[in-house]
Amino acid sequence: MKRIALLTSGGDSSGMNACVRAIVRFGLHEGFEMIGIKRGYSGLLDRDFINMDSKFVSGILQKGGTILLSARCEEFKTDKGQEEAVRILEEEKIDGLIVIGGDGSLTGANVLHNMGIKVIGVPATIDNDIYGTDMAIGVDTSLNIIVNAIDCIKDTASSHERAFIIEVMGRNCGYLALASAIASGAEAALIPEIPFDIEKLGDLLYARYKSGKTNSIIIVAEGAASAYTIQRKLKNLAGYETRITVLGHYQRGGYTSVFDRILASRLGRMAVDGLANGRSGEMVGLWDGKIEFISLDKVLATKKLLDYRLLKLAKVLV
Amino acid sequence: MKRIALLTSGGDSSGMNACVRAIVRFGLHEGFEMIGIKRGYSGLLDRDFINMDSKFVSGILQKGGTILLSARCEEFKTDKGQEEAVRILEEEKIDGLIVIGGDGSLTGANVLHNMGIKVIGVPATIDNDIYGTDMAIGVDTSLNIIVNAIDCIKDTASSHERAFIIEVMGRNCGYLALASAIASGAEAALIPEIPFDIEKLGDLLYARYKSGKTNSIIIVAEGAASAYTIQRKLKNLAGYETRITVLGHYQRGGYTSVFDRILASRLGRMAVDGLANGRSGEMVGLWDGKIEFISLDKVLATKKLLDYRLLKLAKVLV
Amino acid sequence: MKRIALLTSGGDSSGMNACVRAIVRFGLHEGFEMIGIKRGYSGLLDRDFINMDSKFVSGILQKGGTILLSARCEEFKTDKGQEEAVRILEEEKIDGLIVIGGDGSLTGANVLHNMGIKVIGVPATIDNDIYGTDMAIGVDTSLNIIVNAIDCIKDTASSHERAFIIEVMGRNCGYLALASAIASGAEAALIPEIPFDIEKLGDLLYARYKSGKTNSIIIVAEGAASAYTIQRKLKNLAGYETRITVLGHYQRGGYTSVFDRILASRLGRMAVDGLANGRSGEMVGLWDGKIEFISLDKVLATKKLLDYRLLKLAKVLV
Amino acid sequence: MKRIALLTSGGDSSGMNACVRAIVRFGLHEGFEMIGIKRGYSGLLDRDFINMDSKFVSGILQKGGTILLSARCEEFKTDKGQEEAVRILEEEKIDGLIVIGGDGSLTGANVLHNMGIKVIGVPATIDNDIYGTDMAIGVDTSLNIIVNAIDCIKDTASSHERAFIIEVMGRNCGYLALASAIASGAEAALIPEIPFDIEKLGDLLYARYKSGKTNSIIIVAEGAASAYTIQRKLKNLAGYETRITVLGHYQRGGYTSVFDRILASRLGRMAVDGLANGRSGEMVGLWDGKIEFISLDKVLATKKLLDYRLLKLAKVLV
Repeated sequence: MKRIALLTSGGDSSGMNACVRAIVRFGLHEGFEMIGIKRGYSGLLDRDFINMDSKFVSGILQKGGTILLSARCEEFKTDKGQEEAVRILEEEKIDGLIVIGGDGSLTGANVLHNMGIKVIGVPATIDNDIYGTDMAIGVDTSLNIIVNAIDCIKDTASSHERAFIIEVMGRNCGYLALASAIASGAEAALIPEIPFDIEKLGDLLYARYKSGKTNSIIIVAEGAASAYTIQRKLKNLAGYETRITVLGHYQRGGYTSVFDRILASRLGRMAVDGLANGRSGEMVGLWDGKIEFISLDKVLATKKLLDYRLLKLAKVLV
Repeated sequence: MKRIALLTSGGDSSGMNACVRAIVRFGLHEGFEMIGIKRGYSGLLDRDFINMDSKFVSGILQKGGTILLSARCEEFKTDKGQEEAVRILEEEKIDGLIVIGGDGSLTGANVLHNMGIKVIGVPATIDNDIYGTDMAIGVDTSLNIIVNAIDCIKDTASSHERAFIIEVMGRNCGYLALASAIASGAEAALIPEIPFDIEKLGDLLYARYKSGKTNSIIIVAEGAASAYTIQRKLKNLAGYETRITVLGHYQRGGYTSVFDRILASRLGRMAVDGLANGRSGEMVGLWDGKIEFISLDKVLATKKLLDYRLLKLAKVLV
Repeated sequence: MKRIALLTSGGDSSGMNACVRAIVRFGLHEGFEMIGIKRGYSGLLDRDFINMDSKFVSGILQKGGTILLSARCEEFKTDKGQEEAVRILEEEKIDGLIVIGGDGSLTGANVLHNMGIKVIGVPATIDNDIYGTDMAIGVDTSLNIIVNAIDCIKDTASSHERAFIIEVMGRNCGYLALASAIASGAEAALIPEIPFDIEKLGDLLYARYKSGKTNSIIIVAEGAASAYTIQRKLKNLAGYETRITVLGHYQRGGYTSVFDRILASRLGRMAVDGLANGRSGEMVGLWDGKIEFISLDKVLATKKLLDYRLLKLAKVLV
Repeated sequence: MKRIALLTSGGDSSGMNACVRAIVRFGLHEGFEMIGIKRGYSGLLDRDFINMDSKFVSGILQKGGTILLSARCEEFKTDKGQEEAVRILEEEKIDGLIVIGGDGSLTGANVLHNMGIKVIGVPATIDNDIYGTDMAIGVDTSLNIIVNAIDCIKDTASSHERAFIIEVMGRNCGYLALASAIASGAEAALIPEIPFDIEKLGDLLYARYKSGKTNSIIIVAEGAASAYTIQRKLKNLAGYETRITVLGHYQRGGYTSVFDRILASRLGRMAVDGLANGRSGEMVGLWDGKIEFISLDKVLATKKLLDYRLLKLAKVLV
């Protein structure tokens, strides 16, 4: 193992930079050459390579987004693109590759592994929908941003005695919605994993209204329903008036939280360690508080279940 | 002057509570009875009055929203409602009234003044569209929230090399859009006061792209256009792809900034002072750095012009 | 189990309120009467009891400090005081007690358990020095405050090309110092667990200076040394000039982070659950990502070791 | 006017970078060559010059500190140093110089002006002690940081029912102490401009204690007294126990507030404008809400008085 390359891919999440920094610092410390690939798989096919020294990753620890940039790449999804990627990595004498990203990015990583490239994956996505890690890089920062925004909206909701529907990210996974509902003391969370009953939601609003609680916050994961749909259905149900806020791209990031900085540093360090020890086709993850390796085959084949402990908590507190 | 009542009305803005606190503290200090009216003009008609002591306003200095609550009131817009309001204020022996709110709220305040009630208005709205004050209560806090969100989105925009359209509040007034564009280093701001040319916007994006700047931020005031409209037009123009974030109610509030806490305290104190000195039909405002009185007639009759100095600044920096 | 009492004791940490809220909400949900004891063991001896309903804990989820207040109590450390406490708890027909606090508070809890009272402890302290829980309530919030402050100071340090010594809390435990050094990219962390060599520290500063890195950040846990001592020693060593910031009580708190809100909610819920199931003399803790019970005897008899994984990380990154 | 140089000097304040950015962007826009001088007057004597293009100031708008760095320079205080500086500026064909900093920096600027160099000063210091500008660059950001920290400490103070003394910056000027006391609802502010009476402070604490208010916050400007002195005196007076926090360098900065970003941009733009129009020996300042020029002679000869309106406000609210 002499030259290690790394790339970030897919939607960005806060802490990717902290992870890049840890990988480069630890890699250099171990005596490897560290090569950054810009724009994910797209940059790989374009040979958009860059030598990374310690100075390159200086001052990025807290910065949101990714200095390596990210991009979609349709070409890499084809056999031809993948063969080309392997050839380029071989020509560039890359001995090992680290892929930081979400589900799609890790799928790509596993393809390369199966074609003979040494690859380790690092889970980074705000959705927290990757099996094999309790928390992906970026989730904690996003949660704090979301909950901070809900706290703001609650001030308005209380002042105007209104019900608000707040739509958060999460296509297949209700983690952000559920955790932010618990952390903000919201009245309900609608998530993709559990079918919801609009009439029960209406009953809840009505019961609160009857008991003198004049404001309510409902969190909706984008994968469960659009906030507009819920608004319309509540209106049709019994004339319930609600306000809407869709917390768009703003959820992705900015200033990285301490949890994400440390998680990203630990995972990054372990990813280099894995490659140095001959591992491949694995992801590093936070498993019951420890950093562990888990095969990418397993990660990609298993649906991450919703944390039932959060669910039980939500049933009492939300 | 023995009994002073106060109410907050219209959309809430951060700093209303700091203002309520200053009014109550200073009023009590001067020996007045201080009466809170809940839910604005609606609560006035419902005689939703409450005696406010020093303890009542303890711990609210930094809190967003308004502890006096706010509500719409169609009834107060009618002659009958207004006469009823005057009768109630007289029956409750209110010697003076302070109204904290935006344009509509101050219009109501002036109506009561013209019907013989002693009234002073305090400008509070995030739109900053009230003539007679450089800054209304809440503007600074909202701007910081908006700019903070844009800073987050810029991280994503840079990482993905994309253009983002961010819609901010401001129905008739581009202040929030213009000031946040300057403060965030956005590439363009579309505001209601100045007609925009979608082709010039397209040219700007194209010129940036050609010069290697792959990300752009465009701020749109809701009164200028919907972010969705701009997105569609840019798409139709030359296939420009953009992402959208609509910063909804989240802009209104939360944790009050120091500027708003001090402005609200100064305006609140002066409002009590005004009533104590027999003034009525006036608004207290921040005029060239000083707290001044200005007649509500003038305030309501004059359209606040956009600060041309900001505009000149934007032309160079944005 | 009919009446459950709860108290907070010792130094406050952010998330205590979230925990109080969860305990009360879940307790009421399970059909218990919930009794708050003000000012910790001191209030217990003063019978400073209060019935807590759902409204009592409304709006406190994100608030720093503790609405139940905290105080020192010398009297409770005596046999007489402890016997009195037991008598009062019996007279007040308290069937179970939940104690939220740090080492000293949990010691008191175990004493009461050994005297026949049903007691469950919940770890809350910013020092993170309690065996049996990966993270105590308040640690994550404090870390984010500390790291945020260090990020600020780094701006100044870079601009003036100076070395800064920053003293953080931690009498026996270097966790805050170590974790904040990793998360802020500091150059060194001095902690009570590991003897430090002032000459090596001097060498490090010198080596950085020689390589053109003109600013440095050194974190010192108060238990390792005073920042002033380090400053003087570096001065004496070779004339090194450093600046100092002591991050005092400000580290304790404020606005609770999402991690602490959820951890506090989970621990609080489980504490009620434990009492309801007849448990006593145990603490609820976060053990490898799960909420577990552990005997107070074990908690109090075992010194929490520094996380060697953080240490290894620090050796590379710091 | 062809080549404009700029430097930052003295203690850094947040917004210096926003000002540097505005100067460079506007200068380039007007067709000037823009030269950055590193490390203030020290770098001037070392000819530490750098050509600044638009890219150089990209991404610094919100960053605390100063990318141009700052340093002390004893040599520049001598006649020989000043003559050398003039010779260097002439040799480097600098047609105009912009100096961003506090009192000492502006004194240097005026010296150069009197020796024939075209110079404009921009006030930047967190102390807000410069005559001729309502607010210097950095004051608003510092105030928000200070008040945020006090809000945190208040949570602890309430929970433990204690009095806290918080020391803030301000050697000759009580602005930060006074404004932060108003904005945080502190109980007292001790400032250099007004002699304080320790017995009256004791009486205030005692009166609060008697009326059941068990926590207090006292703000001390470093120029009025050290927090330790006040603590000792209160102890000696009648055994009052207080806690102390000294908010050191952390006050200087970090993430720039919107107010400072816009103020810095306006002042920076106007400074270039001034040089372009042949002005020299003047400072740009915020005077009654407008950007104005004022002679450096006047600025340096006049002591900035404390804002009596804040003082009146403090008398009622603090």
